[in-house]
Amino acid sequence: MQKEPSYGAGIWHFATYVDRYATDGYGDPRTVLDAIKLAGAVGDLSVVDLNWPFPPGNISTSEVKDALAAEGLRAIAVTPEFYTGAFAKGGFTNPDPAVRQRAIDLVAASAEVGRELGVDYIKLWPGQDGYDYPFQADYNDLWDKSVSAVRELAQSFPDLKFAIEYKPREPRNRMVFSSVARTLLAIEDMGVDNVGVLLDFGHSLYGGETPAEAARMAMARNKLFAIDVNDNFRGWDDDMVVGSVHLLETFEFFFALRDAGWDGVWQLDQFPFREDSVEAARAGIRTMRAFHHALNNLDREALAAAQSAQDALGAQRIAKQALYRALAESETL
Amino acid sequence: MQKEPSYGAGIWHFATYVDRYATDGYGDPRTVLDAIKLAGAVGDLSVVDLNWPFPPGNISTSEVKDALAAEGLRAIAVTPEFYTGAFAKGGFTNPDPAVRQRAIDLVAASAEVGRELGVDYIKLWPGQDGYDYPFQADYNDLWDKSVSAVRELAQSFPDLKFAIEYKPREPRNRMVFSSVARTLLAIEDMGVDNVGVLLDFGHSLYGGETPAEAARMAMARNKLFAIDVNDNFRGWDDDMVVGSVHLLETFEFFFALRDAGWDGVWQLDQFPFREDSVEAARAGIRTMRAFHHALNNLDREALAAAQSAQDALGAQRIAKQALYRALAESETL
Amino acid sequence: MQKEPSYGAGIWHFATYVDRYATDGYGDPRTVLDAIKLAGAVGDLSVVDLNWPFPPGNISTSEVKDALAAEGLRAIAVTPEFYTGAFAKGGFTNPDPAVRQRAIDLVAASAEVGRELGVDYIKLWPGQDGYDYPFQADYNDLWDKSVSAVRELAQSFPDLKFAIEYKPREPRNRMVFSSVARTLLAIEDMGVDNVGVLLDFGHSLYGGETPAEAARMAMARNKLFAIDVNDNFRGWDDDMVVGSVHLLETFEFFFALRDAGWDGVWQLDQFPFREDSVEAARAGIRTMRAFHHALNNLDREALAAAQSAQDALGAQRIAKQALYRALAESETL
Amino acid sequence: MQKEPSYGAGIWHFATYVDRYATDGYGDPRTVLDAIKLAGAVGDLSVVDLNWPFPPGNISTSEVKDALAAEGLRAIAVTPEFYTGAFAKGGFTNPDPAVRQRAIDLVAASAEVGRELGVDYIKLWPGQDGYDYPFQADYNDLWDKSVSAVRELAQSFPDLKFAIEYKPREPRNRMVFSSVARTLLAIEDMGVDNVGVLLDFGHSLYGGETPAEAARMAMARNKLFAIDVNDNFRGWDDDMVVGSVHLLETFEFFFALRDAGWDGVWQLDQFPFREDSVEAARAGIRTMRAFHHALNNLDREALAAAQSAQDALGAQRIAKQALYRALAESETL
Repeated sequence: MQKEPSYGAGIWHFATYVDRYATDGYGDPRTVLDAIKLAGAVGDLSVVDLNWPFPPGNISTSEVKDALAAEGLRAIAVTPEFYTGAFAKGGFTNPDPAVRQRAIDLVAASAEVGRELGVDYIKLWPGQDGYDYPFQADYNDLWDKSVSAVRELAQSFPDLKFAIEYKPREPRNRMVFSSVARTLLAIEDMGVDNVGVLLDFGHSLYGGETPAEAARMAMARNKLFAIDVNDNFRGWDDDMVVGSVHLLETFEFFFALRDAGWDGVWQLDQFPFREDSVEAARAGIRTMRAFHHALNNLDREALAAAQSAQDALGAQRIAKQALYRALAESETL
Repeated sequence: MQKEPSYGAGIWHFATYVDRYATDGYGDPRTVLDAIKLAGAVGDLSVVDLNWPFPPGNISTSEVKDALAAEGLRAIAVTPEFYTGAFAKGGFTNPDPAVRQRAIDLVAASAEVGRELGVDYIKLWPGQDGYDYPFQADYNDLWDKSVSAVRELAQSFPDLKFAIEYKPREPRNRMVFSSVARTLLAIEDMGVDNVGVLLDFGHSLYGGETPAEAARMAMARNKLFAIDVNDNFRGWDDDMVVGSVHLLETFEFFFALRDAGWDGVWQLDQFPFREDSVEAARAGIRTMRAFHHALNNLDREALAAAQSAQDALGAQRIAKQALYRALAESETL
Repeated sequence: MQKEPSYGAGIWHFATYVDRYATDGYGDPRTVLDAIKLAGAVGDLSVVDLNWPFPPGNISTSEVKDALAAEGLRAIAVTPEFYTGAFAKGGFTNPDPAVRQRAIDLVAASAEVGRELGVDYIKLWPGQDGYDYPFQADYNDLWDKSVSAVRELAQSFPDLKFAIEYKPREPRNRMVFSSVARTLLAIEDMGVDNVGVLLDFGHSLYGGETPAEAARMAMARNKLFAIDVNDNFRGWDDDMVVGSVHLLETFEFFFALRDAGWDGVWQLDQFPFREDSVEAARAGIRTMRAFHHALNNLDREALAAAQSAQDALGAQRIAKQALYRALAESETL
Repeated sequence: MQKEPSYGAGIWHFATYVDRYATDGYGDPRTVLDAIKLAGAVGDLSVVDLNWPFPPGNISTSEVKDALAAEGLRAIAVTPEFYTGAFAKGGFTNPDPAVRQRAIDLVAASAEVGRELGVDYIKLWPGQDGYDYPFQADYNDLWDKSVSAVRELAQSFPDLKFAIEYKPREPRNRMVFSSVARTLLAIEDMGVDNVGVLLDFGHSLYGGETPAEAARMAMARNKLFAIDVNDNFRGWDDDMVVGSVHLLETFEFFFALRDAGWDGVWQLDQFPFREDSVEAARAGIRTMRAFHHALNNLDREALAAAQSAQDALGAQRIAKQALYRALAESETL
C-alpha cells in the first residue's frame, strides 16, 4: 500500500490570463500573493512552483515566504520568466549576445531566490527558444547555444537542480527542447549531473508522444526531475483539467511513475481561463487521488502478464477495473 | 427509465485484414459466413451491416439469410463495395463514365439485395471519391457527380433509405463527403427525402468535429439515419475498441443521441487487426451498456443547468458521477 | 488578361501583440493611427479592415477617416471586437443575456461606424463563441443563439453586408462557426440575404479543409463575401506570411477564385509577431502578385483536361510551370 | 559548384499496392523483376533499395543481379520484410520468442543477400514493432528487445551497416523507433558503430519534426546513413511525389544535407497508388534536380547572415530567389 503522494501546482494556475485577442484579460490581474492565497484555499496542495520575478514584479522574497507560510505551502521550484516579449527572438538562443546574457543572468538570479526558498529545482522553460519559419534558423547554432547556456548555469549552481520543461511549440512555432528524447540528448551534451527533465503530460501528448512511454525513457536515465499534469485535445497546449479528456492515458502515465518507483510530487499545470481556479485545482486533485487509489488496487501481476503477451484487451480491462472503481468512489464522496 | 438499445456491428468487424505492408494479411481470410458465425458468438449483437458482394464474392443471399437466422441476427444494412481497387480513381466521381456507371450499378444491385434482406438502409461509403494532390481535381465536378449519383439511386429506390457515411480521408487523401455539414449540404442539393447521414464516431473525431455536436446537427435536420462507434488517437481512423481512449466524449455522443430521442441501433465499427474479434466486440458492448446505464442515472436537470451557465467543471462532474458508477459496475460484473 | 486585383490587410497586421506568456508584448503598443501609417508605408495596399472600437479605444471615426485619406487607403470592413475578455464565455452565445446583448449592441454600433466609413462589409468573428470541455455546452443552444444574433443584426442593417469569418478554434477550444459548410448551413438557417462567409485561408487549412475546395463551395452558393490569406503549419492559426509554407495550395486557392470569376480584394491576415510588419506585408503581396501573373499565364484548357482525367501529375505540372515562372520573375525584380 | 548527386528509389515505388479497402489492389501485382525494369525506364536512377525476400518470394539473387545489370542499376540497400502479417504483434519486439527469432533470422538472411549484392546498408524498418492501445505494452521491454536485436545483428555483421528508418506510426498505432532523437538514443544504447539512421522526410514531417533540423541532429552525431524523400499532408505517411506540397521545407532539408557536406544518394520513397510510377519518379527527380541547381546558386553567406540574426523574411527571400529560379528553369526544359 503506497502512501498518498504530495500534490502541487504552478502558481500561475491561480493567476488570470491574457491572449492575443483578450488583451483586456480573462479576469482582473492578481499578484503572486493573491495567487498563493488561492492555492492555500484548495486545501490539498502542499507545494507550488513560483514564477520569478514574482508577479507583478515588485514583490520581495520574504513577502512570498510569509505568504507561503501563512497557507502552509512550500516552494518546490522557481520558474524564471525568460520567455516574455523582451526575449521575443529567444532567451538562451537570442541572436543578440546581450539579450542572451540577460536571459542567463535572469535565470541565475532566480536560482539565488530558489536557494533562499529552499526549492527542489529551478525550472527552465525556454519558451522563446526556437524559430517560426522554414530557413529562419541555423539549427546547430540554436542547439549549441541552448546546451551551453544550461551547462553554464548548472555549473554555476552545482548545489541546485535544473529541470528542463520541453514543449513542441508555443509561443514559437517550433521549440528547441521539443521532445523528451531531444532533451535527453541535450542533457548528455551538457555533461553535467544536475540537469534533468520536467515532463508536462500535455506537452508530451500534443507532441505525439505516449506520455507514459516518455516518462519511462526519462526515468530509465534517472533524469525525470519533475512532472506537470493537465489535459488537451492533442493539437495544442490547452492546459485543461486533469482527466477531462484523456483519462486512461493519464492513468497510464501515473502507473508508469508508480511502477518505476518514482516518488516526486504530482503537480498541476492547468490554465483555467474561464473557470474558478480553486475548483479547477480541486477537480484535478480529485482525479489524481482516484489514480492513487486505483494504483493501490491494480492487479500488477495480471497486468504484467497481459502486457508480456501484448494482450491489449486484457491489459485495458485490468487497468479499467481498478480505475473505474476508484473513480466511482472518488466522485461519490 | 429508457430500455436498453439494440447493439449491432459491421460484419467486417469479424473479418481479417490486409494493409499496404501486411499483404499476407492479419490472419487467414474469412468468408461472410465465417464472420456471421463469429458475430453470433458475441452474444449481445442483434443486427449486422453486410458488405456486398458478400466476401469472398461467390456467396448467395439465401446462404447469408440462413446463416443470419442460425445466429439470431438481422441484416440492418448492406454496404456495397464500390471502393475497391477497381474504383481507384473514384466510384461516383470516376473520370471514366463507364466506371462511374459500374459504381452506380453495383450500388443498385446491392439495393436489390438489401430489399430482399429487409434492411433498414443501404450504406453509401464512397471511399475512393475524392482526390490526393493539390490541383488534381475540379471540386465542383466531384461535388456534382457525387450529388447526382446519390440522387439517382435514391430516386430509383424510393422505398429504401440511403445513409452516407462521411469520412475526412482514407483511402483517398481527401474525400468528398468529409464532414457532417458538407454531407448535409449535399443531401439538400439532392432534393430527395430518403438520404441521410451515417455518423461514424471515429470519423467525426479525427475530422476535428465534436461527435456529439455533429450528431446534434444531423438530428436537428432529421437526417441521422445510423451511427457507428469505435475510437482512435484523433489523427487517423484507427477503429479501436469503443472507449479505449476517449471515454468521456463517447459518452457525450450517446448522451446527445438519447437526449434528442434518437432510438436507433448502437453499432460497432471496430477493426481488431491484432485482437480477438469476439472479445473486442464484447469489450465495446460492455462499455456501451455502461453508457446506457449511466444515461439512466444521469441527473439531466442538473446537467442542463450547468450547461446553460457554461459551467464546464460542474457539467463534467455531473456527467462523471453517472458515468463512473456505471463503468465500475460494468467492469465488476 | 485579367487586371491586377486590389490588395488589402487587416489593420492588426500593423499592430503589436501579446500572448499568454509575453504579457509585456511583442513591441510597444500602437494605436490604429500608427497602424494606418504603417499600412500606408507598404505601398501596395488599397484597403484595410479596421478593428472597432479603434485601438486603444479613444479614437474617433473622423480621425480614422483622415488618417486613411492621408495614406490613400479605404476601409473595406469593420471588425467589432466582441471577442475580448469581457466576452470570455461568449459573445452571441454568452449564457448571460445582458452580456449577449452587449455583444449584439457592440456589433450594431460598429455597423453604424461601418456605414459612416462606407465599408463593403461588417466582419463577424465570434471568437469566444464556442466551448472548451466535453459536456460544457448545449450545442443546439449555441447554434440557435449564434444564428438568431446574426439574423437580428442582418435584419437591422439591411443595407449592409455581414461576413462571418469561421475558424476551428482559438481562443475557445472549439468554435461554433468552425468550417465553411457549418457556416453555410447557419446562413441558410438565418434566412437573410446579406450574410456571407469570410474565408481565411489559414483557418481553412488548419481546419482540415482544402481551401480551394472550401472557396468553391461558398462561391457555388454566392456566399463568398471576402477572403483573408496567410499561412501556417496545419495545426494552429500561425498567421504566417503568405506562401511561406504552402505555396502550391495557396496558388490553388487563388486559382479557384479567379476561375470562378470572383473579383474581390486579395487581403492579408498575417500576424508578424517578431517581424517588421511593413516588410511582412510586402513579402505577402509580392507572392500574391506572382500568383496573379501566374494565373494569367496558366494554361487553363490543359489544366481542365488533366483535372477531368484526375491526372495528378499532369495537373500539378501545368500549375507549376505557370507558378514557378511567375515566382522566379517576382523574386528577381 | 557541387556535382549532381546520384538519385535512387525504393523498388516498391514501382510495385502496385493494396490497402484495407482495395484488397484487390491498385493495379496488377508486379514481381521485383518487373519493378526493376520500370526503375530502369525512369532514366535518371542509379540505385535502388530492394525488399527481401524478393517479391513475390521465389526470385533468386542472381536473377535480381542480372535484372539490375540490364538496367544499369545498383542495389544500394536491402530491406528485409519483417513487418508482414506474420509479425503482426512485432518483429524484434514480438512477445513470442520464436517469432522474434524468426524476425532476427530474416534480417540476418537479408544481410547475407546484401553482402552478395554489395549494398551500402541493410535497412531496418521495424514497422510492426510498437503498440496500439494504452496499457498494452511494457515500454521498457519493447525498448530493450529492439535495442538488443539490432545490436546482435550489427555485431553479427560487422562489415555491414544497418540503417534504422524511424516512423511515428503505421502499421502499429505507435512505433518504438518513432523519432530521430529516440532512434539516436537507441543507437547509443546499442554501443555499436555500424548502426545509423535512415531519415525519411515524410516520416519526420508528419511526426512533427522539422526535417532539416532532424537531419542536422543525425549528422552532428555522424549517424545519418541514408535518406528517403516524398511528401504528405502532415497527418499521415501519404508518400506523395517530392515537392508536391511542402516545397520550401524539402528544399531546406536538402540545404541542410549539402551544407553539412553529406554526400549520399538522394532517394525516393513515393507510393504512386493511382499514378504512373515512372512518371512519378521523373517528377520527383525533376524537383530534386532543381534543388541541386538552386543549392549551387544559393547565396550562402547572405543566408548565414540572415539566420544569425533570425531574420525570417530575409532568410526566406534568399532561399526563394535561388529556388524559384531553379524550379522555373527545371519546368521549362
